[in-house]
Amino acid sequence: MSIAQPLAKYSAWRRAGDYVFLSGVIAVDPATATIVKGYADVPPAARAMLGQTGEFSTDIKEGPILAQSWFVLDRIRATVEDAGGRMSDVFKLVQYFRNLDHFPHYSRVRKLFFTGEPPVSTVVQVSEMLPTADILIEVEATAFLPLPR
Amino acid sequence: MSIAQPLAKYSAWRRAGDYVFLSGVIAVDPATATIVKGYADVPPAARAMLGQTGEFSTDIKEGPILAQSWFVLDRIRATVEDAGGRMSDVFKLVQYFRNLDHFPHYSRVRKLFFTGEPPVSTVVQVSEMLPTADILIEVEATAFLPLPR
Amino acid sequence: MSIAQPLAKYSAWRRAGDYVFLSGVIAVDPATATIVKGYADVPPAARAMLGQTGEFSTDIKEGPILAQSWFVLDRIRATVEDAGGRMSDVFKLVQYFRNLDHFPHYSRVRKLFFTGEPPVSTVVQVSEMLPTADILIEVEATAFLPLPR
Amino acid sequence: MSIAQPLAKYSAWRRAGDYVFLSGVIAVDPATATIVKGYADVPPAARAMLGQTGEFSTDIKEGPILAQSWFVLDRIRATVEDAGGRMSDVFKLVQYFRNLDHFPHYSRVRKLFFTGEPPVSTVVQVSEMLPTADILIEVEATAFLPLPR
Amino acid sequence: MSIAQPLAKYSAWRRAGDYVFLSGVIAVDPATATIVKGYADVPPAARAMLGQTGEFSTDIKEGPILAQSWFVLDRIRATVEDAGGRMSDVFKLVQYFRNLDHFPHYSRVRKLFFTGEPPVSTVVQVSEMLPTADILIEVEATAFLPLPR
Amino acid sequence: MSIAQPLAKYSAWRRAGDYVFLSGVIAVDPATATIVKGYADVPPAARAMLGQTGEFSTDIKEGPILAQSWFVLDRIRATVEDAGGRMSDVFKLVQYFRNLDHFPHYSRVRKLFFTGEPPVSTVVQVSEMLPTADILIEVEATAFLPLPR
Amino acid sequence: MSIAQPLAKYSAWRRAGDYVFLSGVIAVDPATATIVKGYADVPPAARAMLGQTGEFSTDIKEGPILAQSWFVLDRIRATVEDAGGRMSDVFKLVQYFRNLDHFPHYSRVRKLFFTGEPPVSTVVQVSEMLPTADILIEVEATAFLPLPR
Amino acid sequence: MSIAQPLAKYSAWRRAGDYVFLSGVIAVDPATATIVKGYADVPPAARAMLGQTGEFSTDIKEGPILAQSWFVLDRIRATVEDAGGRMSDVFKLVQYFRNLDHFPHYSRVRKLFFTGEPPVSTVVQVSEMLPTADILIEVEATAFLPLPR
Amino acid sequence: MSIAQPLAKYSAWRRAGDYVFLSGVIAVDPATATIVKGYADVPPAARAMLGQTGEFSTDIKEGPILAQSWFVLDRIRATVEDAGGRMSDVFKLVQYFRNLDHFPHYSRVRKLFFTGEPPVSTVVQVSEMLPTADILIEVEATAFLPLPR
Amino acid sequence: MSIAQPLAKYSAWRRAGDYVFLSGVIAVDPATATIVKGYADVPPAARAMLGQTGEFSTDIKEGPILAQSWFVLDRIRATVEDAGGRMSDVFKLVQYFRNLDHFPHYSRVRKLFFTGEPPVSTVVQVSEMLPTADILIEVEATAFLPLPR
Amino acid sequence: MSIAQPLAKYSAWRRAGDYVFLSGVIAVDPATATIVKGYADVPPAARAMLGQTGEFSTDIKEGPILAQSWFVLDRIRATVEDAGGRMSDVFKLVQYFRNLDHFPHYSRVRKLFFTGEPPVSTVVQVSEMLPTADILIEVEATAFLPLPR
Amino acid sequence: MSIAQPLAKYSAWRRAGDYVFLSGVIAVDPATATIVKGYADVPPAARAMLGQTGEFSTDIKEGPILAQSWFVLDRIRATVEDAGGRMSDVFKLVQYFRNLDHFPHYSRVRKLFFTGEPPVSTVVQVSEMLPTADILIEVEATAFLPLPR
Repeated sequence: MSIAQPLAKYSAWRRAGDYVFLSGVIAVDPATATIVKGYADVPPAARAMLGQTGEFSTDIKEGPILAQSWFVLDRIRATVEDAGGRMSDVFKLVQYFRNLDHFPHYSRVRKLFFTGEPPVSTVVQVSEMLPTADILIEVEATAFLPLPR
Repeated sequence: MSIAQPLAKYSAWRRAGDYVFLSGVIAVDPATATIVKGYADVPPAARAMLGQTGEFSTDIKEGPILAQSWFVLDRIRATVEDAGGRMSDVFKLVQYFRNLDHFPHYSRVRKLFFTGEPPVSTVVQVSEMLPTADILIEVEATAFLPLPR
Repeated sequence: MSIAQPLAKYSAWRRAGDYVFLSGVIAVDPATATIVKGYADVPPAARAMLGQTGEFSTDIKEGPILAQSWFVLDRIRATVEDAGGRMSDVFKLVQYFRNLDHFPHYSRVRKLFFTGEPPVSTVVQVSEMLPTADILIEVEATAFLPLPR
Repeated sequence: MSIAQPLAKYSAWRRAGDYVFLSGVIAVDPATATIVKGYADVPPAARAMLGQTGEFSTDIKEGPILAQSWFVLDRIRATVEDAGGRMSDVFKLVQYFRNLDHFPHYSRVRKLFFTGEPPVSTVVQVSEMLPTADILIEVEATAFLPLPR
Repeated sequence: MSIAQPLAKYSAWRRAGDYVFLSGVIAVDPATATIVKGYADVPPAARAMLGQTGEFSTDIKEGPILAQSWFVLDRIRATVEDAGGRMSDVFKLVQYFRNLDHFPHYSRVRKLFFTGEPPVSTVVQVSEMLPTADILIEVEATAFLPLPR
Repeated sequence: MSIAQPLAKYSAWRRAGDYVFLSGVIAVDPATATIVKGYADVPPAARAMLGQTGEFSTDIKEGPILAQSWFVLDRIRATVEDAGGRMSDVFKLVQYFRNLDHFPHYSRVRKLFFTGEPPVSTVVQVSEMLPTADILIEVEATAFLPLPR
Repeated sequence: MSIAQPLAKYSAWRRAGDYVFLSGVIAVDPATATIVKGYADVPPAARAMLGQTGEFSTDIKEGPILAQSWFVLDRIRATVEDAGGRMSDVFKLVQYFRNLDHFPHYSRVRKLFFTGEPPVSTVVQVSEMLPTADILIEVEATAFLPLPR
Repeated sequence: MSIAQPLAKYSAWRRAGDYVFLSGVIAVDPATATIVKGYADVPPAARAMLGQTGEFSTDIKEGPILAQSWFVLDRIRATVEDAGGRMSDVFKLVQYFRNLDHFPHYSRVRKLFFTGEPPVSTVVQVSEMLPTADILIEVEATAFLPLPR
Repeated sequence: MSIAQPLAKYSAWRRAGDYVFLSGVIAVDPATATIVKGYADVPPAARAMLGQTGEFSTDIKEGPILAQSWFVLDRIRATVEDAGGRMSDVFKLVQYFRNLDHFPHYSRVRKLFFTGEPPVSTVVQVSEMLPTADILIEVEATAFLPLPR
Repeated sequence: MSIAQPLAKYSAWRRAGDYVFLSGVIAVDPATATIVKGYADVPPAARAMLGQTGEFSTDIKEGPILAQSWFVLDRIRATVEDAGGRMSDVFKLVQYFRNLDHFPHYSRVRKLFFTGEPPVSTVVQVSEMLPTADILIEVEATAFLPLPR
Repeated sequence: MSIAQPLAKYSAWRRAGDYVFLSGVIAVDPATATIVKGYADVPPAARAMLGQTGEFSTDIKEGPILAQSWFVLDRIRATVEDAGGRMSDVFKLVQYFRNLDHFPHYSRVRKLFFTGEPPVSTVVQVSEMLPTADILIEVEATAFLPLPR
Repeated sequence: MSIAQPLAKYSAWRRAGDYVFLSGVIAVDPATATIVKGYADVPPAARAMLGQTGEFSTDIKEGPILAQSWFVLDRIRATVEDAGGRMSDVFKLVQYFRNLDHFPHYSRVRKLFFTGEPPVSTVVQVSEMLPTADILIEVEATAFLPLPR
């Protein structure tokens, strides 16, 4: 099954020695090539976990970053599993935001995915990401999956 | 022969174990310390490969990003060779743009340099790079060159 | 002894094989959770080393970037030592600036910390960093500390 | 006891017939004439209720609007009590924000203060409020406290 | 029948003594939680009344404010009727615009709804309203519906 | 005698029960439909009361807000008198500014009109008001004038 | 009688073969060299035709573009008549706007001048026109007036 | 068959003597009154001719201008044929862009439509076009189709 | 001799019936494909005619628009002559500026080229022209050169 | 006769030893307290000397700076004469501009007033001057008028 | 006693012949090297003289410019006295503002310091001053203190 | 020998009594009329004194202000010597910057030129200087050179 189909000619992940390196992941659904823009674009179970309130004004404000955060981290999880590992093998994240006021939302979602020892982390705000300005976050992950010797 | 002479006190590349890490590369000619600003600053063979039209209005618009893309990737190739490897050993790229509208141009050039399995890739738009705002792209590459054991 | 206490739920450093990866470091004092804003927030010995002039107009302009540069690199040094290494084991730096006009100041400070073979280096200007817009620089370091075999 | 001491020459509340009208309330502590800027400026019990995480990057982002929201609504409660009523007598709110991205945070706090039938509500984003641009929210409340006949 | 379903936890209207107070009304369809963006989002009869020309360039420019004006005032009418009154019982309006160049359009629509003695009126331009920047107008109405004594 | 002739189709004031509600008042002269732009547009007695200095640079800076403040409050006084009351019956003001740096000037003028118990007050800065950007302030007043029973 | 006196050294119209070419026309009164800024600058009959409401806030918003649209088209009519033709001989218009939100207003006025087969039309928004930024529209017309053969 | 249905009351083309003048053409589909926004809005054959890559990030960047360029020129071709001529009868083009960085893309498309002697050409960048800011290009064409004598 | 070599694939001029249509002309030297940026880029005789003062601060401010104005009009003259006519055959000009404050300078130069009956003229300010933002003016000319019958 | 009546409480000139110091002079007519905005505000003789063209578009662009330059320098002349000297006694000028593109115009006017040895000169562009943003230039002069000994 | 301790290496004043020249003075307290930001940073007697109202919203708006104006002029007085003169010996002031809307406030304070013949005065608005953007005003004074002969 | 040739018609210096007044000096080389833009435009000895590092990124950031500072002060020195004095006779400087972040660099250079008692000094940031925006600093100096009596 194809996971994390690339948006351009690049690899979703590459193994080099004992490490698996992932491309930066954004919230674009590979099946439909559409951008995740809110709660409607993630599964109902995810919405509940993210705290959807059912109140339009709140959900339209918080939905985009919460849904993208979930989508991106869930995609990283699936990609690492595709490479033979688990989320807990990810030891490093570089996170790019369009607006760092979104950080608390992302941070709460990240804790759901890393329940053990957290990865090292770098966070900066950049002016734009691919493919369009709707993208609020990009995350680049690295995992340690030592080869059997 | 000196390749990729640094713009500040840093190393062009460092080997650590089985990996070769490169500094971020920008389009500055080390021989003359001048910034690549268009087709005139790359060799004629490169210009042809990049699709120079000979029409002033088109070339002055596309030249800067195409020439810088070629220069940067060619410099990475030379640096990896200096370290004893080949372009196909590069498995990871982090790419910083000043304007992501330039991405399609860069993407076409990148395919010329990576004809086999493509590297993992992260792409973001930042507000400026060294040494001046004329720099349109910076690329940080990592290569896997296992030591003989 | 706790060094480099995280600002969020992440690890200050993680070892993966022969490498030690550090989180991006910013100039926030872990003891007091306050941001380094000038000479007053670094030890007197550091101020002298950074060239404090005692003239208000000059120090208020140069102090913030010089003090943050020193603080961040000194924190990296302490973290690497916490992981069992030394500053000279750091072979790679990614450096994010809010304003690249600050680069010459940072560059002078970095030379004080890397007196031998310099690391590979990537430098870009981003629009903001955590936790607030007072942060002028963030540095992500990687060290090579081979495990005894 | 003096509650909601005015910042200029105006009344904190005025009764007119069966209604009590309040001046717009902002997060300025009347005792010290200082502006509420974060968790540190509200009582520990309020901080816990507002969800302070203890993580610097998250708290410095969310603290200002959460603390101001609590302060303003708590001040309205105290003012209505000063006029002889209770929070549930407030039937109308006009709410001015500096940034409507703060609305979800405010909305969660408001629910803590209005557990019964909620008031009618008007919400707009304005460019600034008194006394300085640090003020993120201003709330004007009206209560119905019929006079005994 | 549910009219004017709230976007957050607040009441669409509250009676206090002889008065009925409405929450600020915006052009969001409660049935579908979508924002009114042009003629297509209001009934054909309303379009005709608003002067739809059938010319794309004109209708795409004028449609948004005319359709939102009609929707908001029609919703106020329905809400007052829900409270037992009529549009002519509304004696006060506070009107918030994103762009006061829209005022003449709104003013013409308002005359269709208030054919008798007009209400008192306050008009200001604010920088944004809930839930998103697509909202061009918000109207807060108050009606006088004396209780039988 | 016609006082506070409306700029659009709305009422200058409406009585509803024991209350008199005024439309938002701006500094437009009803007799001539021109906007009050400085000392020249108010009577000499008002100018003296407002502190006209006779120095061009000072008067051209302070004149617009002082003259508009006086004009608006004087118009409110006249309108309330038209409704059978007095300025001291006004118990509530909502005040919109284009620039809150003007507040101290307005505040001094307001004290001249409210010498007894001051009204409740809400103050915000908005981006524009009707009819043009020359308008610096709009004030909405409410008075309590109980009907004889 | 002098019609359409030029603002610089250029011709109001030139015949070339069977065509009459007009210079771009703006709303400057040749008799007084003043710019048309609103209803007051066009004849009363024109004001009525343009829909002047007599309500200050509406007229001050719509007046400038409506009056300029009328003035410019009326001047084109007079110029074509000066060249021996009629408005219906105009078969081509190029129209420059400062703000395309004005298009619906202009479009309604244009229909009053072209009751038969309409001309071909090009419409763009430019950043400024001569002589000052008060100019909202410039129209360049071409007429077909075949010479008798 | 109706070709190039106008967006307002104007003619798609007018013959005057030996010339056919076209209104400025934009990328709006007359059948559906929707704006061409990318590859999805042009026929598959056109997409291939324009160089669609199938890579999301590249196509979303280049698609809008390429698709609009094709649509506009194809519409001009159809309109000239409607008037009895062919694309090679078009001898003059005035081209308005929202962003001249798009010129190389448009230029490549234009060559597909003009394989013989190219027309004269004027190119400028304007701030906006009808009907909305999504329009990236407008082209006004003139053709020479001498009447039989 | 090659005059007015195109910057892209278009014709410098085309005859259609009795008219000669020119492409928009900008100040790019066809021999060297460089942009005219000041007095240094036009012949000494032109400089004198344009009023070069020999004072650096004045010439560097006025030189660019004066030199481009001369170059463009002189190129139009040469192109019309190439087509068999003279400058006095030009009866229509459309002139695009980057900054209309440049108009008086251009206007003085234009009078030097049109000493007889002036052409009709349209003047607008646009945001940019080809090939780069250094271009201050573009002029599109049309000439009437009746064919002998 | 009173010359250069101050706009605030300051002296138009003061003698100190052998020197006469003038306040910064702007183009405000002391008789009428109005700002010089163009040719209409200076005497006909001055207009001719300044090169008024009689063409509206040119004069409205150049008139403001030329008229203000003349007015300010003529006022300096009159003030120095009031102090017993002549324009040639002025040996130093500090000149503030709102827009240095105006410098060539001012420079030409200045030469009319200083026909002998020119004064020393400092020129900078500032963001605004008293009393309003209509002021384009302010000039501070110093004269040497040795006292008889 | 040390008065007006410099912020950099410059002299607070220098005598040259019969004149005493002062460096530009800003509101930085030499004893503590802190910037005067409001009433709290000047002595109580000064606050009263400047009109402190005790109302927070007014004082926080007017305090900064009033306190800086007083501080700067009082420092000039002390410096001139240090040089052996008095405030009335100051005959020339050059005054730089960050915002000329502050001028009326400064002007009132200046009158308190110059009760006799006022100095000559130049006033401009600049974009920033040393040491930081908190500085609202800088004043450069010159005094005439003839040496005994 | 010609020193400090003026950029316009003004004097480089003028003696008035015992004082020598200099025009504001900027970094334009009189021999070549080119602007000093970096280290390459000053003599090698100056570069060394200014701390040129030989590292491109640092030198391109610091070079412009350091080279201009040196050039301007060296030119002042030469001009004063031309007038018969020495740098130590300069007792007053007014310094205009485009960016006060450059102050520490300038301040270090100034100390090299004033080793004895420093001059009085005024420093402000302005928005632009002659002849172009490349100019980063302008310095106006005054010297005291008493005439022999």
